[in-house]
Amino acid sequence: MAPAPQPKKTPVALVGLGGVGVAIMQQLLSPPLAAKFRLVMIANSKKYLYNSKPSSSDFSPSTFKEQLDSRGQAVDLPAMIGALATHPDGPAIFIDSTATDTIPALYPTILQMNIHVVTPNKKGFSGKLSLAQAINGASYPSPKQGSLVYGESTVGAGLPILSTLKDLLETGDEIIKIEGVFSGTLSYIFNEFSKVEGGDVKFSEVVKIAKEKGYTEPDPRDDLSGTDVARKLTILTRLCSTQTPSLPFSLLPEGYASVPTSSLVPEVLQGCKSKEEYVERLAEGDAEMDRLREEAFKEGKVVRYVGVIDAKSGKVEAKLEKYPFDHPFATALKGSDNIVSFHTKRYSPRPLIIQGAGAGADVTAMGVTSDCLKVHERLRLKAWGSIGF
Amino acid sequence: MAPAPQPKKTPVALVGLGGVGVAIMQQLLSPPLAAKFRLVMIANSKKYLYNSKPSSSDFSPSTFKEQLDSRGQAVDLPAMIGALATHPDGPAIFIDSTATDTIPALYPTILQMNIHVVTPNKKGFSGKLSLAQAINGASYPSPKQGSLVYGESTVGAGLPILSTLKDLLETGDEIIKIEGVFSGTLSYIFNEFSKVEGGDVKFSEVVKIAKEKGYTEPDPRDDLSGTDVARKLTILTRLCSTQTPSLPFSLLPEGYASVPTSSLVPEVLQGCKSKEEYVERLAEGDAEMDRLREEAFKEGKVVRYVGVIDAKSGKVEAKLEKYPFDHPFATALKGSDNIVSFHTKRYSPRPLIIQGAGAGADVTAMGVTSDCLKVHERLRLKAWGSIGF
Repeated sequence: MAPAPQPKKTPVALVGLGGVGVAIMQQLLSPPLAAKFRLVMIANSKKYLYNSKPSSSDFSPSTFKEQLDSRGQAVDLPAMIGALATHPDGPAIFIDSTATDTIPALYPTILQMNIHVVTPNKKGFSGKLSLAQAINGASYPSPKQGSLVYGESTVGAGLPILSTLKDLLETGDEIIKIEGVFSGTLSYIFNEFSKVEGGDVKFSEVVKIAKEKGYTEPDPRDDLSGTDVARKLTILTRLCSTQTPSLPFSLLPEGYASVPTSSLVPEVLQGCKSKEEYVERLAEGDAEMDRLREEAFKEGKVVRYVGVIDAKSGKVEAKLEKYPFDHPFATALKGSDNIVSFHTKRYSPRPLIIQGAGAGADVTAMGVTSDCLKVHERLRLKAWGSIGF
Repeated sequence: MAPAPQPKKTPVALVGLGGVGVAIMQQLLSPPLAAKFRLVMIANSKKYLYNSKPSSSDFSPSTFKEQLDSRGQAVDLPAMIGALATHPDGPAIFIDSTATDTIPALYPTILQMNIHVVTPNKKGFSGKLSLAQAINGASYPSPKQGSLVYGESTVGAGLPILSTLKDLLETGDEIIKIEGVFSGTLSYIFNEFSKVEGGDVKFSEVVKIAKEKGYTEPDPRDDLSGTDVARKLTILTRLCSTQTPSLPFSLLPEGYASVPTSSLVPEVLQGCKSKEEYVERLAEGDAEMDRLREEAFKEGKVVRYVGVIDAKSGKVEAKLEKYPFDHPFATALKGSDNIVSFHTKRYSPRPLIIQGAGAGADVTAMGVTSDCLKVHERLRLKAWGSIGF
């Protein structure tokens, strides 16, 4: 038997070059991933560079900025997608590492051009149902499509949350309840604020420290509104409903906006016009948070901001909840870790639990590059010379 | 565009019909898996039945025993594999749900015949290195082979332990330490014996209760010897070494027998001739276990039987270890759950943790059927009519 031809590297376009984008670039250009992927296109919000057979120095974390400045062309998504669709080593992978709404709106088009999509961007899956359905309809296993779309890192970054849920559902397990601390920022804030060993630190102080440490968005209200949690719940709920239509969930027509979400921005502060005013006045909400913490403590519980998907009631909610001291969400949860528990028919009475960093550039990038590997394996297994089927 | 042809069901042979085997059968024959797989062969240790186009009543959990008795042929592995290799809807999946050494020895042959192997049987991967390497050499991504071999359920049953480790390694993360409670039986025993809240129950009493509840093997020494943990450590260590040859681990030439393993069978009882004598005399080891528990408790710790893979020292060990009360292995671990923590360069200082039932027929079967789905997706994506690549 003749030796099998060396499989081709899968061409990759990386759009969005913030912290996560650069970490993705770093991983794709380093071993062991560099043996499987070839970065052929990079883009920020203004310029892009494309080279169907780039040398290793064309795109690198240390030089890409000046390369884009000096040689980049103005961003032109149709031209970029067109180039990618005709890459000689195609099909290619399009990584959307932006936080935009505009690029997710193009996923159906990109997928229809036989380009695979991998993304940490939640927007396409957690907004209006029509877009999420258009993305599904343009990708495998939709009957007419073979392009793949993966978004493991949209929930829990590199933690295997979506793949585990998919395995549970696809093998016929029955979801009873999914419950978790889905926001790294809110995990940190409540792990510091409400402890098993007690303590009287003020909520406003903890938020300020979190902001100083860079754990919050520039405007902390973006975290404290619960919207990020509601987006993740939307993605999980829609995965449940799509795989198991008998589950009693709404498909959440407006996405995250359809999820009942408790805001941690107190009513008195909801009128703040600037983030500066809001941060300045944060202490005005402390009394209410003190009361909640004390009430929980008296019951032997701590307070956590969680997302809950309950298959019995069909309710999906982002809210504050109390947990006993010996619950995994209380003692075992530390720092800014995420924790997700899957209560199912098989994982009962004790749930399947996944815990760890749920944010950060390197672990988010890992969720993206491991999705790229899934695409690569599915493509290259077929392209392999000596496979006998 | 003409509608894509309906993809064919993947033919499956299921060998080994104990508790796990029957649970696998149940899952494969029920929705949603029944739409993707066709069980065409079943076998116990004596007889097998093959039907290339079975009707739904041919193989079912309620009737297979009498069907095998009345119509089965004597087990003939070459004939069985030959039939499977020529199935008109092939390639097929061979599920080894036995605990034998003989069937794993055939994996290389089966894989070379373009049959995919999925198994919860640890023996092929955790014994002599020569067999593990022959299995690897006969399967993807070995350059000449395209058959797949999956064994997710060999470690942690349905928990995503191996797939997570593979993702970490393949995306270039650096393993620092893998540490876990890998035995459901030993998890139960130590969760009951050594508690954060104290207690003076005797070790022998806990073992007896575990035996009565069916948590131990018929001979409890099979659990208390630590061999099962050593086998799981072998599988994890070899995965690390194969993916990242720079890691300082031995490839464990004799498999689990090369792993330093502390036995919980006290020296005075190692001469027991029968399991009855052993169980009868169990209390003779209580004093030593009491001493260990007390020593830990004074330090604010509990005792757990763990497996540790340390990339700094290159050491792989199955042993007793002490953990502080607020450690996830102490408070949060309950019942007979497994828990595994991956300390890596990216997941640092806090590890990625996966926890949940690590034994039991349904969750082990789920690990097997989700592996079958991975094979199916890789096969059927290729067979799909309208895929443009």
